[in-house]
Amino acid sequence: MTAQSLTDLSRCCVHTITTKPWSFRESVQSFARAGIPGITVWSDDLHDLAPKEAKSIIADHGLQVVSYCRGGFFPHLDTARRNVAIDDNRRLLDEASAIGSPFLVLVCGTAAGQSLTVSREQIRDGIETILPHAESCGVKLVIEPLHPMYSDARSAINTLKQANDMAEGFASPWVGVAIDAYHLWWDSDLQNEIQRCGKNGNLAAFHVSDWKTPTEDMLLDRGLMGEGCIDIREIRSWVESAGYDGFIEVEIFSKKYWEMDQPQFLDQIVKAYLDHV
Amino acid sequence: MTAQSLTDLSRCCVHTITTKPWSFRESVQSFARAGIPGITVWSDDLHDLAPKEAKSIIADHGLQVVSYCRGGFFPHLDTARRNVAIDDNRRLLDEASAIGSPFLVLVCGTAAGQSLTVSREQIRDGIETILPHAESCGVKLVIEPLHPMYSDARSAINTLKQANDMAEGFASPWVGVAIDAYHLWWDSDLQNEIQRCGKNGNLAAFHVSDWKTPTEDMLLDRGLMGEGCIDIREIRSWVESAGYDGFIEVEIFSKKYWEMDQPQFLDQIVKAYLDHV
Repeated sequence: MTAQSLTDLSRCCVHTITTKPWSFRESVQSFARAGIPGITVWSDDLHDLAPKEAKSIIADHGLQVVSYCRGGFFPHLDTARRNVAIDDNRRLLDEASAIGSPFLVLVCGTAAGQSLTVSREQIRDGIETILPHAESCGVKLVIEPLHPMYSDARSAINTLKQANDMAEGFASPWVGVAIDAYHLWWDSDLQNEIQRCGKNGNLAAFHVSDWKTPTEDMLLDRGLMGEGCIDIREIRSWVESAGYDGFIEVEIFSKKYWEMDQPQFLDQIVKAYLDHV
Repeated sequence: MTAQSLTDLSRCCVHTITTKPWSFRESVQSFARAGIPGITVWSDDLHDLAPKEAKSIIADHGLQVVSYCRGGFFPHLDTARRNVAIDDNRRLLDEASAIGSPFLVLVCGTAAGQSLTVSREQIRDGIETILPHAESCGVKLVIEPLHPMYSDARSAINTLKQANDMAEGFASPWVGVAIDAYHLWWDSDLQNEIQRCGKNGNLAAFHVSDWKTPTEDMLLDRGLMGEGCIDIREIRSWVESAGYDGFIEVEIFSKKYWEMDQPQFLDQIVKAYLDHV
């Protein structure tokens, strides 16, 4: 089964990091002007702007906050640094709440010098520790599994199966999962795990971009949808079959696109969204 | 459980591509001089040398051929190119036999423009087609799962689970699996799948190198063992628990090391092998 193409932008969301050269305000204004109703805010992109003020700016432009990025990075070799991570995550939950985001996305982290198994335990412990604060903030913690090429430095959660296992272990309305096509497209179990994720009520977010061949930078060379080898529409059909009808978030890290004229890039995003998502 | 360190080079094998700047003959001579008893031959490294002549050179230096690299690349959009791949693999099997290799390693391939599912079917069909020829050559086809970052251009088989599923589907003594720590270290199912691979008689080969942080080139920046984040010794303990006691193959693609003085690099390989494998 393949989904029909999207005929409008009503479910479109763009991450502020996608248009990184813009100030936060420019991103909001430009997304609104383009008819994009959703925005996912990266904390770094706020710079000195208070989350409450950011919330007003977003509301003034009629946009909706989809997610706040990004917490996590729980694993560390020493307790002191793990505690700092907990404090950081509590602060990020406060900010997410202040900006009006229902979610805080977690890039879970990993630590050189210890096994992935230990890092995974520390991730679980970290989420457990901040979970009461998430609940009191009314912000869901969203586990985002990252591509296995990031196991060394960014996340020890690298498949949807692992994220599902962890989310189900909490069995909490305050823990969910983000499905990012870029990280997960290669997985032969993806369709089944998406189904499982939805069935268990954990499917909180859906991110899109594309995998270019060759990929020239492991972090900053994501493609526009349709530019690479991911069948995004098929993955969307799986996500929708699993019951998800929320925002579809365009999250592209790209040196190449950040060097481009950003209004022109946003036009390309809109076109790629309608043509390939 | 962690394995003891290796106390000698009796199980050490080096791939000719690891010391790519050397001619085939220089590699053989240098490995022999260093006390390395095993050699895995990359067909490209033979240049104009006939496999039979290569076999004599290897035997003259008291080395043993561990594997021949590399067949595979079965998936293509059109039948004509899939048939060319079949012919190529038959020729490579002939060469493997002529050089005295018990194995032909398969980098299975993938094809942009079709789904990974279709590519996986074409891989299965390709192996099935050449299997009688493998048997008549007395050469085992060894499926090597590649890291998911190669799903776009090199292989649609990206986990040991997939390789095990495929090998078990053939249930043939002429199909096996290669476990390469670089490709598989991140997988939370790795220990179980290694156990399964051994139990079902499919564990044919074990390759080592290391994952550097940052990795500056997705293909040509592998590290020496101990230089990165892979706990190679732990993975070796799993491989040995699964019943494997064969050669441990050092397979490093690295622009940086290829630019080095190769005798010095080989010294570093020997030291890294004893210290970290």
